[in-house]
Amino acid sequence: MQINGKVYRTIWVENNIVKIIDQTKLPHQFIIKDLKTVKDSINAIKTMEVRGAPLIGATAAYGLVLSIIEKNDQSFLKRSSEDLIASRPTAINLKWAIDRMMKKLSGINSNEILKIALEEAKKIVEEDVKFCKNIGVNGLRIIEGIANKKKDTVNILTHCNAGWLATIDWGTATSPIYHAHQKGIKVHVWVDETRPRNQGANLTSYELNEEGIPNTIITDNTGGILMQRGQVDMCIVGTDRTLSNGDVCNKIGTYLKALSAKDNNVPFYVALPSSTIDWSIKDHKQIPIEERNSEELSHVEGVDENNKIKKVRIYPQKSKSLNLAFDVTPAKLVTGLITEKGICEASEKGLKGLFK
Amino acid sequence: MQINGKVYRTIWVENNIVKIIDQTKLPHQFIIKDLKTVKDSINAIKTMEVRGAPLIGATAAYGLVLSIIEKNDQSFLKRSSEDLIASRPTAINLKWAIDRMMKKLSGINSNEILKIALEEAKKIVEEDVKFCKNIGVNGLRIIEGIANKKKDTVNILTHCNAGWLATIDWGTATSPIYHAHQKGIKVHVWVDETRPRNQGANLTSYELNEEGIPNTIITDNTGGILMQRGQVDMCIVGTDRTLSNGDVCNKIGTYLKALSAKDNNVPFYVALPSSTIDWSIKDHKQIPIEERNSEELSHVEGVDENNKIKKVRIYPQKSKSLNLAFDVTPAKLVTGLITEKGICEASEKGLKGLFK
Repeated sequence: MQINGKVYRTIWVENNIVKIIDQTKLPHQFIIKDLKTVKDSINAIKTMEVRGAPLIGATAAYGLVLSIIEKNDQSFLKRSSEDLIASRPTAINLKWAIDRMMKKLSGINSNEILKIALEEAKKIVEEDVKFCKNIGVNGLRIIEGIANKKKDTVNILTHCNAGWLATIDWGTATSPIYHAHQKGIKVHVWVDETRPRNQGANLTSYELNEEGIPNTIITDNTGGILMQRGQVDMCIVGTDRTLSNGDVCNKIGTYLKALSAKDNNVPFYVALPSSTIDWSIKDHKQIPIEERNSEELSHVEGVDENNKIKKVRIYPQKSKSLNLAFDVTPAKLVTGLITEKGICEASEKGLKGLFK
Repeated sequence: MQINGKVYRTIWVENNIVKIIDQTKLPHQFIIKDLKTVKDSINAIKTMEVRGAPLIGATAAYGLVLSIIEKNDQSFLKRSSEDLIASRPTAINLKWAIDRMMKKLSGINSNEILKIALEEAKKIVEEDVKFCKNIGVNGLRIIEGIANKKKDTVNILTHCNAGWLATIDWGTATSPIYHAHQKGIKVHVWVDETRPRNQGANLTSYELNEEGIPNTIITDNTGGILMQRGQVDMCIVGTDRTLSNGDVCNKIGTYLKALSAKDNNVPFYVALPSSTIDWSIKDHKQIPIEERNSEELSHVEGVDENNKIKKVRIYPQKSKSLNLAFDVTPAKLVTGLITEKGICEASEKGLKGLFK
């Protein structure tokens, strides 16, 4: 998609160097960063220079490529894969991408391994682009349906960033929106700012602006009253891990919006590529919920009056804080799952109907 | 209650000058400010140097006193009362306090009027202190009940600041907590930071710290998963306007926590002095919901590394935002109303049983 009128993806390779957009600097600065080692990749995932389940998966896959370039050695590759998996605990794509790469690379001799690793990483990336595009085509039908009935702008609420910046291109939750916009359907997006890291404001609103899609940032507290007032026609969010029973683990706060959608009869959709489905876990209580540094809450970064990036402490110095990154939205609150293969009910039956 | 070990109220009078704590500077600076004119009072309410329904009411009452000191003239007094009522639209106490003062002052001759106005304003203030204290005594029973059953620390979630800083003393939602703490019951408070103005972090956590009550700040997104995990024993919030049917209009985001409490069988209480009850409105859709400056969302104030207060812009420059200040929690989600006269069901029957 576009930034300053130029088309980008979130990750690409030039001369054996992996290029990413440093998303911690958005929206205030647009910086392309080089990843040259597996350590660079791990660091980019940990510090959230790259984030979003699909993009984390792709970065991890390319991390293994960089590991091979660094040191073509099976035990180093194995350690790299473990370190990459440990870099963030909740997104399932990370493990999925690493497992897929390692399966492909097992038993490959050292002359061929770099070429094959690079091919497989590219395949993961191209597949994600295709999946996200298909999610858009499938989700477009829902937006179209509302637009035809309402004969006015469709108001869509989203939480966090499940936009193209969270994937390689198109995004998951935003893909139906981009497809609707390109088809000339009038859409307006309510963007939850998504504390503590404000990825809604910093990334989703930013990328919608760059594509010319009308949007309004709101605090995470605001979705409820907008739904009470009938100002939200539908919600679409992404997911970091989808259980086979249809429960959805996504950015913290998603659950509260889903409750409000249910209470106000607003359809609540989750958009996902099948790589986020965790077929192994049956009970959402088994999902490890990442606890991040509490400084992400107590300190905020922005630009001062001279457009310089500044970090300020917003909490009382004596106060403690807790920074949980995800919550779980039970399947009962989800109207449907929008996947690359079609839309299904948020249930084992629904998912198996499409994928098994 | 205490700040730096010294006991304060939020508003008091010295030599015909009204003194307030400038709450826009907390927690980073503790500044006592003089209000000398009715314009100062209006400004203090508008800019939220004073906030919280009961404190707004008291400031408005003292605003009329200042109006009389400024110019002892009935038409000036009337204009002052209108300007004060218009200073913020949602909190009902504002109108309640002004109506009460104006009723008392109508037909009073100009020699006596200042003395009577001052007496009535002081009565409003002392009544609020007594009401808040009684709310604490009544709410204490609920906390005690949980503590006796659980035999461990009682975890209480609150939203925004309905603490003593929102009233004259004790607070509404915090009063039961202060009473429990003083009785030696172990409590821990989950403090919603409460975007956009972060009054939870800036004021509630600050005042709990000063009283030595353990508390942890969380983003407004976090309450849901804490309740899913069983880490919240009860919620207590304040209210800016309580309808006679039990619907509660409070700081935006309250509704989302109430939904989550219902979904997880966590008791959800609202603490209020009867001055916040609006007997006239039957449908919450008639409550005017204040829309504030969008810069309150896009810009954040904190302290930099040199402890200097700095404001930074956190949103993309091109982005729009919407700043609604309140939402409505339907009575069906409220376990009970904790008032100065006792605890009742959130319904017309419940409220009338105590108050009419």
